Amino acid sequence: MKYDDVMKLALERGFYFPSCEVYSDAQAGFWEYGPAGVGLKNKFIELWRRELIRRDKMIEVDGSQIMSKSVFEASGHLASFADPIVRCTKCKSTYRADKIIVDATKTVIPESAGLDEFDKVITEKNVKCPKCNGDFGSTKKFNMMFQVGIGPEGEEAYLRPETCQSIFVDFPRLFKTMRGKLPLGIAQIGKSFRNEIAPRQSLLRLREFYQAEIEVFCNPARLNDLDKFSEIENTKIPIQVDNEVKIMTCKEAVDSKIIPNKFVAYYLGILIEFYEKAGIDIQKSRFRKLEEKEKAFYAEVAFDFEVETTTGWLELVACNYRADYDLSGHATKSKEKFEVMDNDEKVLPHVFELSMGIDRSLYTILEHSLREDKENDRTVLSLKPYLSPIHVGVLSLVKKDGLAEKTDEIYLKIKRKYDVFLDHSGAIGRRYRRLDEVGAPYAITIDHQTLQDDTVTLRMRDSMEQNRIKVSELDEILSKKTAFP
Amino acid sequence: MKYDDVMKLALERGFYFPSCEVYSDAQAGFWEYGPAGVGLKNKFIELWRRELIRRDKMIEVDGSQIMSKSVFEASGHLASFADPIVRCTKCKSTYRADKIIVDATKTVIPESAGLDEFDKVITEKNVKCPKCNGDFGSTKKFNMMFQVGIGPEGEEAYLRPETCQSIFVDFPRLFKTMRGKLPLGIAQIGKSFRNEIAPRQSLLRLREFYQAEIEVFCNPARLNDLDKFSEIENTKIPIQVDNEVKIMTCKEAVDSKIIPNKFVAYYLGILIEFYEKAGIDIQKSRFRKLEEKEKAFYAEVAFDFEVETTTGWLELVACNYRADYDLSGHATKSKEKFEVMDNDEKVLPHVFELSMGIDRSLYTILEHSLREDKENDRTVLSLKPYLSPIHVGVLSLVKKDGLAEKTDEIYLKIKRKYDVFLDHSGAIGRRYRRLDEVGAPYAITIDHQTLQDDTVTLRMRDSMEQNRIKVSELDEILSKKTAFP
Ligand SMILES: [Zn+2]
Ligand SMILES: [Zn+2]
Repeated sequence: MKYDDVMKLALERGFYFPSCEVYSDAQAGFWEYGPAGVGLKNKFIELWRRELIRRDKMIEVDGSQIMSKSVFEASGHLASFADPIVRCTKCKSTYRADKIIVDATKTVIPESAGLDEFDKVITEKNVKCPKCNGDFGSTKKFNMMFQVGIGPEGEEAYLRPETCQSIFVDFPRLFKTMRGKLPLGIAQIGKSFRNEIAPRQSLLRLREFYQAEIEVFCNPARLNDLDKFSEIENTKIPIQVDNEVKIMTCKEAVDSKIIPNKFVAYYLGILIEFYEKAGIDIQKSRFRKLEEKEKAFYAEVAFDFEVETTTGWLELVACNYRADYDLSGHATKSKEKFEVMDNDEKVLPHVFELSMGIDRSLYTILEHSLREDKENDRTVLSLKPYLSPIHVGVLSLVKKDGLAEKTDEIYLKIKRKYDVFLDHSGAIGRRYRRLDEVGAPYAITIDHQTLQDDTVTLRMRDSMEQNRIKVSELDEILSKKTAFP
Repeated sequence: MKYDDVMKLALERGFYFPSCEVYSDAQAGFWEYGPAGVGLKNKFIELWRRELIRRDKMIEVDGSQIMSKSVFEASGHLASFADPIVRCTKCKSTYRADKIIVDATKTVIPESAGLDEFDKVITEKNVKCPKCNGDFGSTKKFNMMFQVGIGPEGEEAYLRPETCQSIFVDFPRLFKTMRGKLPLGIAQIGKSFRNEIAPRQSLLRLREFYQAEIEVFCNPARLNDLDKFSEIENTKIPIQVDNEVKIMTCKEAVDSKIIPNKFVAYYLGILIEFYEKAGIDIQKSRFRKLEEKEKAFYAEVAFDFEVETTTGWLELVACNYRADYDLSGHATKSKEKFEVMDNDEKVLPHVFELSMGIDRSLYTILEHSLREDKENDRTVLSLKPYLSPIHVGVLSLVKKDGLAEKTDEIYLKIKRKYDVFLDHSGAIGRRYRRLDEVGAPYAITIDHQTLQDDTVTLRMRDSMEQNRIKVSELDEILSKKTAFP
């Protein structure tokens, strides 16, 4: 289904909605997760922990979002993390220069081009303000970090534009106290902040957003020396080669040099296994190797993991080989030691990262899971049971005859272990449809027979089948059906 | 044990450490959670969800940290969320006026006093700069919110100083889409930000910190009309009356009017049950009713939940009856409707909140759980098994004779479901001690007998007892032993 259908679902069923929406000074690019969104997000993160962090024995940290100026001098963000912008001299509207040029002339100028290149095209092609037809001033760089002032003197600090900077800065301590060995994955989930000129709709490009970043520190001399590669060598990954997506095994991709080494292939392999379990349609996904001018300023080799949606191809994960860009930058600036021992060799580790956008991933899961079931006159959100914000609906067929009390009793037994939605009122069909829409994989209904033989009906969301089960078996059945894979 | 012992543990075992520590411009009041801290925090939050959110059928949201200016005009923070500060005219050092006065003269002036009161005491008692003995300029108000500029024009917005403002602003939508009924608890976990003049050591007073806030919306006419009160009426709570802590049941506290109504008592009751399960020593805790001048500017009645530590009494939860302060403020400012129907009555709900500091709670759990076991020459962190960052250590007695391989095999079976620490190297006693220190409740050891009969030893952290168990029973045993209560 389409973006608009997902948006409608999100607003009506409490997945997400705009921040500060009662106020006219609410800013674009800020969204809130409602109860269903929080449930889905937490379970997505738990799956990420299982399939990536625990699987690969990584460690996880949770660092400050506000970081000191030195961090971003060393990381290059203060100098390079900027968009080219132009301002209308008449109505004062501001635009991204590359965007206004592509809209007016179809000419694509890479973000990284010199400012004079933008000015030249604007003058030559006579690009005017779309609002008032006014002239543009000259192109400027606009740094996308949010600055904050610390303490009464307002000392300069910044909201991090990517979570990974904590990981780099903390690396020496973490490697030592956790008795690390290369390769070592260090991961972090948290908010990052980018002062976008043009945020996109809802979760697609936010100014405040969730990242799940994994930075794997490695010895660059040993990128093909990886026993665990055997775990994923036959895992199939979709990879774009010459404008065509081919499905091949990780081993084939390395042998044919499409992926440069086993190390990178291993992490792309476990990433695709994770997204399959998260319910992304892998037929609509690809790893795309970025061209030189597309890459972030710190990346040596980069693959984007992209997924097709009705809004176009969305980048969900940037897989960047950052080499020693970050550690050497922080080592130089801080004068601290960032080298570590690998066997008997002293190395400054290289870094390969899987930088995941959580918000976009959740949007994609919703779009790929939502379907219209016309035959049965319902909309179904076919989330994986372990990701659903509600595991099970608990419904009384009618409220009277002691059924409400019996329903409450069953609800009380399971409510701390499962996410349960208790619902007493309304036509039973309507209550099932509502559960279908929010993605609840199961519903149990308490009826008159329950009072006699302590059985309930268990309804399956996808098949709409109903079975009679014993209340005493409920925990065991739910436990199996909602377990993570 | 003491603050310094906890600090040492935190640094050496990866619970927490200072942010940006490799840089000299690292600011005070910012700390990172290391791997052990992340594990403990996530499990603490899961317990909070079980014992409070799911237990009471609350809903949870996750809102933006950056919020628009209107929000804080309506909430009163722009006008009132400020500390009195003074600046030395000679060396330019800045201090909190109340703090500098109390240090120099033992005179306590409430934060909320007029600025001239501070000036008067400074002049009369001749208070000087402790650094250079210079004179102070006049007292000023310093707003503790961090301002950020949005978009190229830098439109005024703020990092939220408390998570609950999202809940208040989002209330009309949430109540409607989630088909809410009063009383309704809405909760949020997330970061808040306060530009403290004088951050305290480590997790005790941070500039960027985690809150778990619960705002319960209620009909003020029905605060004693609460069926579920029976669930906790016999729960014992420690409550300070006339400078003495008395242990009484929730029912006794309401009957004797020490707690104003059943509604407030219910939430204090489930809160104390939560903290008991989290491993806080309840003998060292108290609910303390705040005096008029101590309360936050928005609170009508307030109880602090405080816990005794070696750094003094720490406030872990502010339990504030905010009445309709917030909703009426936002209703007036936004001109949106915040009234809802309660049965057939239209009401502007009142709010009672449980505003929990997560960081301080974790510090307290660590301090209350850490003990020196001199007899056995070890330090033990007796965390509840369900809160421990590591559920189980998996150790090979020696690496040779195929024991390492057998150990890896067992490790692989359980690593996605449990938090497992695999350890092959070093003396077995040292490895046990390290697990004791990080709070791992169990360790299994693979030895030569394992190869013969597929059994391992299971060692209990607290008793140091060891039992022989079958590998085939391991999952069932761990599942029971590490389950949430
Ligand atoms: Zn214009
Ligand atoms: Zn001075």
